[in-house]
Amino acid sequence: MQRIRTVEVRSHVGERIRITGWLQSLRQMGGINFLVLRDGWGTMQAVAESEAEIASLAESAAGVESVIAIEGDAVEMPQAPGGVELHQLRIEVITPVTDVLPVSLNKRKITANLTTLLDHAVVTNRHPERRAVLRLGAGALAGFRSALLARDFTEIQTPKIVAAATESGANVFKLDYFGRSAYLAQSPQFYKQIMVGVFERVFEVGPVFRAEPHDTTRHINEYVSLDAEFGFIENHFTVMALLRDVIAGILRTFSERYTPELELLRVTMPAVPENIPHIHFAEAQELILRLHSVDVRGEPDLSPQDERWLGEWAKQDFGSDFLFVTGYPMRKRPFYTHPDPERPEYSNSFDLLFRGTELVTGGQRLHLYADYLSALEKAHLPVEPFEAYLEAFRYGMPPHGGFAIGMERLLMQLTGVPNVRLTTTFPRDLNRLVP
Amino acid sequence: MQRIRTVEVRSHVGERIRITGWLQSLRQMGGINFLVLRDGWGTMQAVAESEAEIASLAESAAGVESVIAIEGDAVEMPQAPGGVELHQLRIEVITPVTDVLPVSLNKRKITANLTTLLDHAVVTNRHPERRAVLRLGAGALAGFRSALLARDFTEIQTPKIVAAATESGANVFKLDYFGRSAYLAQSPQFYKQIMVGVFERVFEVGPVFRAEPHDTTRHINEYVSLDAEFGFIENHFTVMALLRDVIAGILRTFSERYTPELELLRVTMPAVPENIPHIHFAEAQELILRLHSVDVRGEPDLSPQDERWLGEWAKQDFGSDFLFVTGYPMRKRPFYTHPDPERPEYSNSFDLLFRGTELVTGGQRLHLYADYLSALEKAHLPVEPFEAYLEAFRYGMPPHGGFAIGMERLLMQLTGVPNVRLTTTFPRDLNRLVP
Repeated sequence: MQRIRTVEVRSHVGERIRITGWLQSLRQMGGINFLVLRDGWGTMQAVAESEAEIASLAESAAGVESVIAIEGDAVEMPQAPGGVELHQLRIEVITPVTDVLPVSLNKRKITANLTTLLDHAVVTNRHPERRAVLRLGAGALAGFRSALLARDFTEIQTPKIVAAATESGANVFKLDYFGRSAYLAQSPQFYKQIMVGVFERVFEVGPVFRAEPHDTTRHINEYVSLDAEFGFIENHFTVMALLRDVIAGILRTFSERYTPELELLRVTMPAVPENIPHIHFAEAQELILRLHSVDVRGEPDLSPQDERWLGEWAKQDFGSDFLFVTGYPMRKRPFYTHPDPERPEYSNSFDLLFRGTELVTGGQRLHLYADYLSALEKAHLPVEPFEAYLEAFRYGMPPHGGFAIGMERLLMQLTGVPNVRLTTTFPRDLNRLVP
Repeated sequence: MQRIRTVEVRSHVGERIRITGWLQSLRQMGGINFLVLRDGWGTMQAVAESEAEIASLAESAAGVESVIAIEGDAVEMPQAPGGVELHQLRIEVITPVTDVLPVSLNKRKITANLTTLLDHAVVTNRHPERRAVLRLGAGALAGFRSALLARDFTEIQTPKIVAAATESGANVFKLDYFGRSAYLAQSPQFYKQIMVGVFERVFEVGPVFRAEPHDTTRHINEYVSLDAEFGFIENHFTVMALLRDVIAGILRTFSERYTPELELLRVTMPAVPENIPHIHFAEAQELILRLHSVDVRGEPDLSPQDERWLGEWAKQDFGSDFLFVTGYPMRKRPFYTHPDPERPEYSNSFDLLFRGTELVTGGQRLHLYADYLSALEKAHLPVEPFEAYLEAFRYGMPPHGGFAIGMERLLMQLTGVPNVRLTTTFPRDLNRLVP
C-alpha cells in the first residue's frame, strides 16, 4: 500500500491508509492504547483497542522514536488532535528503538536545559517545537529568494575561504591553506559588491564566520547571512525601500505557507508598514534625551537600551514594530561605507530595528576607486591585500548599496526563543563544535 | 525619466527611454558612432550620428566600462543586434573609466589565457560569455530547489565548521577554533542524514571544502554542493528515481528560463530519458572487456577511460547522455554506505555518468546503529569523534539515502568550458586564494 503523509490523512477519511514515521508516544488509558506517529511534516493519532494490534511493538521491545508503519482506517473523530485518527491498526516495526532517550520528545514543551538540548540536538531537533523553528528558517530562505528573484536579482555563490578580512582585522578564523594563511569569510561584502559590476542586482545565501569570543544569548560564531546588493541607487534610502519589500516578502511567505509553525510557536506576526518610519542617528539621540532624560549624544553607537527606547517610540508614535535608524557616525562603520555628502561625519547607512533590536544593517557603499584609496589610508589599512578586489572600482562601478539579514536573529526575534542557538540546526559557539 | 533594463527595450519601440549600464564598446564607422551598453541582463546598441551626442564621454575621457546612462529613441532596426537600437542620444557619464582594462571585454570571445582570466575575474566575469555560465549556476540552484520543494523536501543549513572529517581523514582543511582544532566540512553528509530523522526529506545548497592537492582541469578546493537526502526508501533505486527527476527539473529550468545563455554558449541540451539506463559495476567491467578487449575486472573503481566507454555505449545502445552505474565495490565507498544485501562486497550505491563523466554520486546509507559500530570498526575508525552523530541512528532512523551534485561539474559538463575554474565566480585551487 502506498504510504501517505500525516498531513494528507484528512483528505482520506473513510479509506484504509498507511502512514510511516516515528512513534512519538504510546500511552494506555482504560485498556485502550493511543499512539502518536510523527513523520517529516506532522503527527497523527492512532488508536488500538486490542493488545493484538500493538503486539509487534511489544515483540521487538520497540519504544518511543522507533520507526514504524501503521496501516489503519482513517476515521473522523472530533475529539482527536486534527479531527482524524486511525483505527483497526496493523503496525510494522521498521527500526526498533530500545534505548531510553536522552530528552523526552513526547511532551508539548521540551523541558531540558539549554546544554542538554544542544548536546543532543541530533535528537531534540525532532521535537515539534524545535522543528517548527527550523522550518521557519527554510521559509525565511524561500521568502528572501523569491522577493529578490521577482525583482530581477541574480543569485551568486562566492568563496568562503578568503585571503583578506573584509569587516575588521580581528575576529576572523584562520586556516591553513596548503601551507599559506587564509581566513573564513566574515561576510560576502566585497564579492557581492564586485558582482554588482557583473549582474547589477545580486543576492547570496550562505554561511559567514565570526571569531567573536562573545558568550551571549545573541551570538553564534557561524550563521546564515541573507545578503543583497544592487547598483544604480540614489542613496541608502533606495536600499531601505528594497529591504522593506524583502522583509514584507519573507513575512508573507510565513503567513501563507507556515501557518502550522506560527500557531505552534504562538508567533505574533508583525505588520510591515508601507513606509517604515525612519529617524536619523543624531535625532534619535536627541529624542532619547527628551523622552528619557538620558544624554547619549556624542556616543558613536546606540546601546541595546537606546534601541529598546527607540523601538517603544516607533510602536507608540507610528504603531510600527519596525524602525530605520539612519546616518550612523562614519567612525563606527566599515571603511567601504559611503559618507553623507552633506554631513560627512555621518554615513549613508542604516540599521533596521525590529521590536527594539537591530535586525539588519545596510547602506550605500563607496563606488569610486579614489574614494577606496582614501578610505583605506584613513583607516590605516594597507592597499595590497585589497588590490585584486579594488579592480572592480577601478573599472567602473555605479552607486550601489545593500544589506545583510542574519537569518538566526530574524528567527529569534520573530519566534521569541530565548537564545539564538535555538534557531539553528547545530550551533557553533565559543565552546561548542559538536554535534 | 525611469530607467528600463536593456532586455525590456523591445517592448518600448517608438518611445524615448533611458537605459543605464557599462559602456561595453564604442566604435566609429563612416562618421557614425556605435555604442554598446551592457546592463545586468543584456546589451543594447545606441547610435550617435553627431559628435555632440557623445561629447560628454569625450569631456570626461570616459572609455570602455565607464558607467553611463543613455536617453534615446527606441527604434526598430532589423540589422541591429536584437532588432532595436537607440537614436538621438543624450549620454550622462556616471562613473568614468580612464584606465586601460587588463583584458578586453568587447570581443565576442575572451582571448586571454586562463591565469589572466582568473587573476582579473573581478573584471572578466563581466564578459557576456562568463556571465552566461555564472547565470546558469543560478539556474541550477533554482531548478534543484524547486524540484525538491515540489516533492515536500525541507531546506536545511548545517555547520561548515566541524569537529570530525566525514569523508576521509585526509584532505580536510584544518582551522583554529578558539584554540581548538576544527575542520571545514567536506560534505554535509552526517548532518543531512541526521536531519532525515527530523524532516524525512531534506536538501541543502552550500559550500564544501576539499583539501585535495590536485591540480587538474576538473578539481577546485571549494565548491557548491547540491545535497539531497530522504527516508523510507526501498534501496538506491529509489534514490536514482528521485535524482532522475531532479536532473530533469534543473534542465527544464534552463530550457524555460535561460534560453539566451544556452544560445550564447551554444549548449546542446541533453534529453533525460524517463528511465535512465543502468548497469551494475561488475557487468560494466565485463562489457568493457567484451567491447574494448581491456580487462579491468577486479579493479575497485572505474577509470576516466572506462567512464567514457560506458558513456559511448549508453549513447549508442540507448540514445542516452546519462547512465547509472550501480553497485560499486564497498571497499571504495565511505563507511556509511549500505552494502548490497545479496552481494555484500558490492554496495547499494551509484554514480550518474553524463556524457561519459561522473556527475553525481549517491546511494543508500546504513541506518542501524549496530551497523555503524561494525562499519567504523571495519574501517579502523574510532567511535568517539562520531558519537554525537550516531545518536541519530541509536534513536531510530528509517532506511534512507541521497546524493550530491557538484554544481561546478554540472556546469562544466553542460557548457563544455575547458576548465571547472571557469564555472565559478572566484575559484579556489592549490595556488589561488585571490581574488
